[in-house]
Amino acid sequence: MSEKYDQIRPIVWRNGALELLDQRLLPARNAFVRLSEAGAVARAISDMVVRGAPAIGITAAYGVVLAARARFSKEPNAWRRLIRDDLALLAGARPTAVNLAWSLERMTKVIDRGCEENPEGILLDEARAIHAEDIAANRRMGELGAAILGEPGAVLTHCNAGSLATGGYGTALGVIRSGYAAGLVRHVYADETRPWLQGARLTAWELAHDGIPATLLADGAASYLLDKRDVRWIIVGADRIAANGDVANKIGTYNLAVSARYHRVRFMVAAPTSTIDMAIADGSEIPIEQRASDELLCLDGRRVAATGVNAWNPSFDVTPAALIDALVTERGVVERPNADKLARLMNLNAFTAAD
Amino acid sequence: MSEKYDQIRPIVWRNGALELLDQRLLPARNAFVRLSEAGAVARAISDMVVRGAPAIGITAAYGVVLAARARFSKEPNAWRRLIRDDLALLAGARPTAVNLAWSLERMTKVIDRGCEENPEGILLDEARAIHAEDIAANRRMGELGAAILGEPGAVLTHCNAGSLATGGYGTALGVIRSGYAAGLVRHVYADETRPWLQGARLTAWELAHDGIPATLLADGAASYLLDKRDVRWIIVGADRIAANGDVANKIGTYNLAVSARYHRVRFMVAAPTSTIDMAIADGSEIPIEQRASDELLCLDGRRVAATGVNAWNPSFDVTPAALIDALVTERGVVERPNADKLARLMNLNAFTAAD
Repeated sequence: MSEKYDQIRPIVWRNGALELLDQRLLPARNAFVRLSEAGAVARAISDMVVRGAPAIGITAAYGVVLAARARFSKEPNAWRRLIRDDLALLAGARPTAVNLAWSLERMTKVIDRGCEENPEGILLDEARAIHAEDIAANRRMGELGAAILGEPGAVLTHCNAGSLATGGYGTALGVIRSGYAAGLVRHVYADETRPWLQGARLTAWELAHDGIPATLLADGAASYLLDKRDVRWIIVGADRIAANGDVANKIGTYNLAVSARYHRVRFMVAAPTSTIDMAIADGSEIPIEQRASDELLCLDGRRVAATGVNAWNPSFDVTPAALIDALVTERGVVERPNADKLARLMNLNAFTAAD
Repeated sequence: MSEKYDQIRPIVWRNGALELLDQRLLPARNAFVRLSEAGAVARAISDMVVRGAPAIGITAAYGVVLAARARFSKEPNAWRRLIRDDLALLAGARPTAVNLAWSLERMTKVIDRGCEENPEGILLDEARAIHAEDIAANRRMGELGAAILGEPGAVLTHCNAGSLATGGYGTALGVIRSGYAAGLVRHVYADETRPWLQGARLTAWELAHDGIPATLLADGAASYLLDKRDVRWIIVGADRIAANGDVANKIGTYNLAVSARYHRVRFMVAAPTSTIDMAIADGSEIPIEQRASDELLCLDGRRVAATGVNAWNPSFDVTPAALIDALVTERGVVERPNADKLARLMNLNAFTAAD
């Protein structure tokens, strides 16, 4: 990737406050909201001003900076205790993405270091580090994922696992960006991704921004696409990965994995190791967020479904590790992930860190 | 079904003209459009005022009545020649549903019978017969389909194959209605069915009308549903069935069939024999309608996708016979359909008719 690459930046710390690109308005409007208070940051996560597991983690980290500033200015001797409420509020903003807990844990370690001076500076340093490391991880995943694509061809992606879902560059879209730059991705098919239309609104916007040829389709058309067109890989992100390699990701992902196996199309998950939750044995333990029925029953605030029906609206589903051909992380590629391979991947880093 | 059953009637011949329930406005508005000219009938089919393979066939038959009246009144000696243009216009209104051609063929046989008097009466009789036979076929399919459901449980359907898609009662929804009345269908899950939302707008409306408990879901959530909930059957309609049993139906159907096989959920197609096209050897020969990209790129007339992307919008897909557990027709149930079984089914009727 050239140094001049025009990176989409959905999360910006500017003049002492957090600015988030309001993803609910894209692609019609490119507008930032400015947040200077942790409660507002938690609401922005719940309301999906920002979404995508790594992006949520980074956003929460900056939220801790804002919380520390407020607590320290009011109660310089009790802020460490009082900030626990803010941490809990941020942690509860959305349940599925483990990056949120991971990022808050990193921030908590800095809080617990125990220096008595104003904590804003060291917490901001840590939030910036989380942010920068995420972008670097995406770049590395891009390289590693592109390296296993094989023959040039078309790929299919679901939801948005791009710059908008991360610190920048993207997980699945990072692999696609690197693959396109290397001439290995010729065309990108993108599921529109109901009910929130992340594919139509966000992924299409990112691909158009980068000049990568892209075609949208209805989620239900994916199997027919795999039957009719030469799609070489399905590439998606992840919101939480269990210790055995089961992957929670946007609703519809599991459907694609089932179809990919039937059509002998390879299935890749790209996610930083911050998405791997070694405390959870398998996917059945991952909390799956249920969102409001209105996301399906209404369209643009107008009721489209008949009164008298309900909706089932899980925001995520779980793809078993057995359906995943490659898990691409910043530490390396795990082919056909399982508990042993993930344990080795995660320990690898512990050793590296110890060296 | 009780005689007092409050049948939804989407197609009505009243006071010398055709009235169609405008399905584009449901469920917000329950309004009929009145058509007295064949060109307007063809447009109503193209524009999806009416949709669903059997309903399209019935509508076209009434369109022929209107065409004959107009042609005969102007050119009583040449109307048989001139009406060919109207027949071609109606036949071309939508490409995939074979019921359209089947119905026009029946009307053409009446035209060709060659009586010299005003043809409106005998053509109206034939159109009414096509309409009444379709409702009777739906009732029969309802009985036959319900009889193979087995243990009571939940079912999943896609798009709308109900009263609105037929003369009345429905194919897939006919089986579901009969199954619910018999206590064998306990709950109905309905895909919202992008891009046209037939599930959310039409199927939900019909199920609410009948008081059948129903839950909507995003199309991409279907595999997760099959994994998480005890769904016993997927039941869908058909727009054209090839001689080997391959089924063209609303985009997303093939995806469900692949997932049903993976999850060991049974897959039923309910369709009258007018949907079976013995002239087509297999599904690869079925013409698949491509509809406007705007159905995906826009929502309620407003652009939702970024400029610079295209959309792939096939309105139907093809499910291979090998993925179908039961084909329910008004002549009987064909388990695991194939070319031999379909030939026997269709010949059976020829023999019955000859007896």
